[in-house]
Amino acid sequence: MAVMKPGTRAPDLATLQEPVREALGDVQRVFLEAVQTDLVRMNEVSEHLLLQQGKKLRPTLLLLAARIGRPIGPEAIKAGAAVELIHTATLLHDDVIDENWVRRGLPTINAKWNNHLSLILGDYLYSRAFVLLTDGGLWDALRILSRATHTMSEGEMLQILRTDHLDVSEEEYVSFIRDKTASLIAASCEIGGRIGGLDAERLARFGMNLGIAFQIVDDLLDFTGTEASLGKPVGNDFRAGKVTLPVIAALRNAPAEQRRVARELLRGRESLNGQWGEVLAFIDRYGGTEYTMREAARHGEEAKRALAGIGASAARDSLELAVDFVISRRN
Amino acid sequence: MAVMKPGTRAPDLATLQEPVREALGDVQRVFLEAVQTDLVRMNEVSEHLLLQQGKKLRPTLLLLAARIGRPIGPEAIKAGAAVELIHTATLLHDDVIDENWVRRGLPTINAKWNNHLSLILGDYLYSRAFVLLTDGGLWDALRILSRATHTMSEGEMLQILRTDHLDVSEEEYVSFIRDKTASLIAASCEIGGRIGGLDAERLARFGMNLGIAFQIVDDLLDFTGTEASLGKPVGNDFRAGKVTLPVIAALRNAPAEQRRVARELLRGRESLNGQWGEVLAFIDRYGGTEYTMREAARHGEEAKRALAGIGASAARDSLELAVDFVISRRN
Repeated sequence: MAVMKPGTRAPDLATLQEPVREALGDVQRVFLEAVQTDLVRMNEVSEHLLLQQGKKLRPTLLLLAARIGRPIGPEAIKAGAAVELIHTATLLHDDVIDENWVRRGLPTINAKWNNHLSLILGDYLYSRAFVLLTDGGLWDALRILSRATHTMSEGEMLQILRTDHLDVSEEEYVSFIRDKTASLIAASCEIGGRIGGLDAERLARFGMNLGIAFQIVDDLLDFTGTEASLGKPVGNDFRAGKVTLPVIAALRNAPAEQRRVARELLRGRESLNGQWGEVLAFIDRYGGTEYTMREAARHGEEAKRALAGIGASAARDSLELAVDFVISRRN
Repeated sequence: MAVMKPGTRAPDLATLQEPVREALGDVQRVFLEAVQTDLVRMNEVSEHLLLQQGKKLRPTLLLLAARIGRPIGPEAIKAGAAVELIHTATLLHDDVIDENWVRRGLPTINAKWNNHLSLILGDYLYSRAFVLLTDGGLWDALRILSRATHTMSEGEMLQILRTDHLDVSEEEYVSFIRDKTASLIAASCEIGGRIGGLDAERLARFGMNLGIAFQIVDDLLDFTGTEASLGKPVGNDFRAGKVTLPVIAALRNAPAEQRRVARELLRGRESLNGQWGEVLAFIDRYGGTEYTMREAARHGEEAKRALAGIGASAARDSLELAVDFVISRRN
């Protein structure tokens, strides 16, 4: 077992996935079955979707939580696939709403085909997840996931309505990312915890804090990342008028005159020709980067604390490593 | 009890809703609760959505089927509201995909606001339906509705890929409308049947045939209706490149030369200035209208046959009336 000790810096995903590697292969098989439709012309679309697959972070967390309690069975596999289907569906709808043209170095479905296909394929995958869960009789997972998908859509709706409001407070921001991102990660951990027979509420708290840290880092990478490592342009969220923690923190710390200049920059966000450097400098000068990293780390520590009292095992170590992974990731 | 005898022509909806009128009021209350969010700026949106409410055909059928077996309880109310939420969500997504700007005499959400809001509000209502069902522990309804929503999205995907194909066969057409429309109506009847303790498979067959008849009539009204009675422009589907039964039947019956002319008309569908009369004349001359009405009536009869063996009651009479209503409706 090559699992690193918790606290070691920058673990990679493959390492922490070690205790559930085989089960992740099973999740992938169920996911593939669900994505591959009978529609001949859809195969091209589903192939593209599979090329764009991500890190499988949510099924990994679900399986690890379940594995702490007992060996992985078909229930955990199905729930893991359902969570990944819902996540993929959300990305397809997000790409329409946020007008994203590139994801993971490839054109999005809405860019390569059109918004209509991205919308309906999202619906298709959402409903496929619910079919998988009802067919399997996974009622707990159904309850948790229907609540989580509802919370996600509520968060997204709120964000649409608040786009371009520079006066988003830190509290509002945390509430957005809790709804939009952390709720599904928390749901994954909670479901895994239930399947494993653990204290599911504790696992949900772990997932919620991990999810908040995950999104805080994501939002920071929109400023500090590179297009090469992210597989999408930097400054995407910023240009779309999403006010995230680095901006909120820097605006709060800047003196009034600097704040005024910064607000002008933010208002002219869509035609930022050559001014991106100034935006980055403003955020860095007024502690936006530092504060954001500190908040991510704080939620990471909170997540680890939620695991206290859960007995030692390779799977538990991996959950702790997942925190370090999320905090230290570069893409 | 003012229920008309089955077979009487052109019943109105209020008449057939009589046996479940009070329960429909309860469904509406649960529906309202679900639509009204805490988001202040969303209230404007949800008010608009409520102004645009439809006939509540699906909850009506569900409640009537349930009522045949026993008095209406909270289970039927929740399931009825869930079915209407799913239907409304589907319309919101359809309006984005089909670029509909008017529905029931009012601008659509995507016209009045934008596509993004229509998409996310659809997701919000879908997930709200599933929360309602899981919170209520309505596992049968969940299983049936997750399957139905999946079938609907599959049908929509297929239709997107087949748009503009003039060689759609009658068989393909029936398969489309079965997936896209009839599956949810069948699900509503099946759920009602289960709740009422009836032979649910029989009710599902009733609903499937009623749903097919419903959509056939809908597609005919796109040609024979008026903007005033439909609350939306006629020729909408035709201009969007959807090949429906009236066209399929007329193309089949027309001599080769006429068929060629008609195909030219169909190809130039988006700029039909002044040629709409020619399209209508073609469909009528080659029996498109007549054949379509006959098929609607045939499925209506099939629906009524599925009710054979179910004992007489006001609710059962109303289900028969629903067939006549669907066949004879003008909007």
